[in-house]
Amino acid sequence: MKNEKPLILITNDDGITAPGIRTLIEVMATIGNVVVVAPDKPQSAMGHAITINNTLYLNKISKDSDEITEYSCSGTPVDCVKIAVNEILKRKPDLCVSGINHGSNSSINVIYSGTMSAALEAGIEGIQGIGFSLLDYDWNADFSQIKSYVKTIALEVLQKKLPEGVILNVNFPKLKEKEIKGIKICRQANAKYDQKFDKRQTPFGKDYYWLAGEFVNEDKGEDTDEWALKNGFVSIVPVQFDLTAHHAIQNLTKRNWNE
Amino acid sequence: MKNEKPLILITNDDGITAPGIRTLIEVMATIGNVVVVAPDKPQSAMGHAITINNTLYLNKISKDSDEITEYSCSGTPVDCVKIAVNEILKRKPDLCVSGINHGSNSSINVIYSGTMSAALEAGIEGIQGIGFSLLDYDWNADFSQIKSYVKTIALEVLQKKLPEGVILNVNFPKLKEKEIKGIKICRQANAKYDQKFDKRQTPFGKDYYWLAGEFVNEDKGEDTDEWALKNGFVSIVPVQFDLTAHHAIQNLTKRNWNE
Repeated sequence: MKNEKPLILITNDDGITAPGIRTLIEVMATIGNVVVVAPDKPQSAMGHAITINNTLYLNKISKDSDEITEYSCSGTPVDCVKIAVNEILKRKPDLCVSGINHGSNSSINVIYSGTMSAALEAGIEGIQGIGFSLLDYDWNADFSQIKSYVKTIALEVLQKKLPEGVILNVNFPKLKEKEIKGIKICRQANAKYDQKFDKRQTPFGKDYYWLAGEFVNEDKGEDTDEWALKNGFVSIVPVQFDLTAHHAIQNLTKRNWNE
Repeated sequence: MKNEKPLILITNDDGITAPGIRTLIEVMATIGNVVVVAPDKPQSAMGHAITINNTLYLNKISKDSDEITEYSCSGTPVDCVKIAVNEILKRKPDLCVSGINHGSNSSINVIYSGTMSAALEAGIEGIQGIGFSLLDYDWNADFSQIKSYVKTIALEVLQKKLPEGVILNVNFPKLKEKEIKGIKICRQANAKYDQKFDKRQTPFGKDYYWLAGEFVNEDKGEDTDEWALKNGFVSIVPVQFDLTAHHAIQNLTKRNWNE
């Protein structure tokens, strides 16, 4: 048992066929025993959604002779983690990695991201969790440039563990491996979307909308993930699932709520 | 302009016809000018999901002569806030209230909840946000017992404002108004679900699953929302959308990520 390889659970939100998760599987297979449980279709921007009013389907898509066990699931990324940990795996995994996402999950994107919510769910279940994202939305993005970084970060987390209640949000700039300047621990930049809605009409004359708009960062801090990525670094933000604004408790307690 | 009534945006995740949102509309109409933009169907446990790969429909369901303007939206609770703020409303609302949810959003439920994610989205957009939930899942729950508390809390937030980047997660025990002991400012209890999956078969013999399991709270702190609710108080947890685990930054920065 002592020399047993670590058990690594892999999921994502772009769906089980995405090149990003294929790269992640390839890298993790060099470190441990890998089980993949990922959505059977794209589930981007699903946040921490879970399926409570509908059924879930699970299909084993690997053969028994395959080295890596893979399941596709009809649910959200968070559903995938829950069903993997509570129904499929015989023991708690040593690590859960999510991604590699096709596109950024830096700054406020962390809260909308299915990839990051899956990693957070692992954290809630007491499992070391990491979400990986590359700042390239292209389906054919070049994930080979970041493989060595992905391995380094996963090994570091497996060996030294993360502080309790914390998982990692790792974002990679779209650069060649040689151009990347290194890894920076950051805070989430205080940025948001300037949202627009694109109003259109169906062929039958009914109005409908597309969510549109652009990301606006007015946070000039050099300790943010946005700064790190713009300056050629890999950004790592420690993320927590305790959403309590502890700093606000004193201020609010002083007020007379009961009068 | 000086004596203009506050503009209040109302949404929820149980859908626009739920008794919980009807009560919230009734109370808020005594305080300000109300606009309702809520999901056209139940959207429980949708977390911070947004609709990016599909279209959104918006239907004005109130008449022009009605005092309260109401829209139903085909999207998630967070979509409702985004489309209300960026497409429907002519100015930024003074307050966004979400709920009243049929069932608890205390402790870790905050992260799965569409109701709370809508309030958080308001916070992201720089709007005062409050999510209200009653610990009764019944469609016919007695919301009349908590109306005076809902009004008190909304007025307090309108008058004194919340600390920047903070919204409120308000949960009510299932008690008569006279039995409620008052309001307590709390932290989110460190509890989670002991998840199970109920495996069944379709009439055609295909396996499927229902998410099941029970909520387990091993956090004995008397400063938690779970403690407050069990002891007859209304719990208010200040909630933030900066998910950075700031306390972990120093620990992680010391490690040698770049070797």
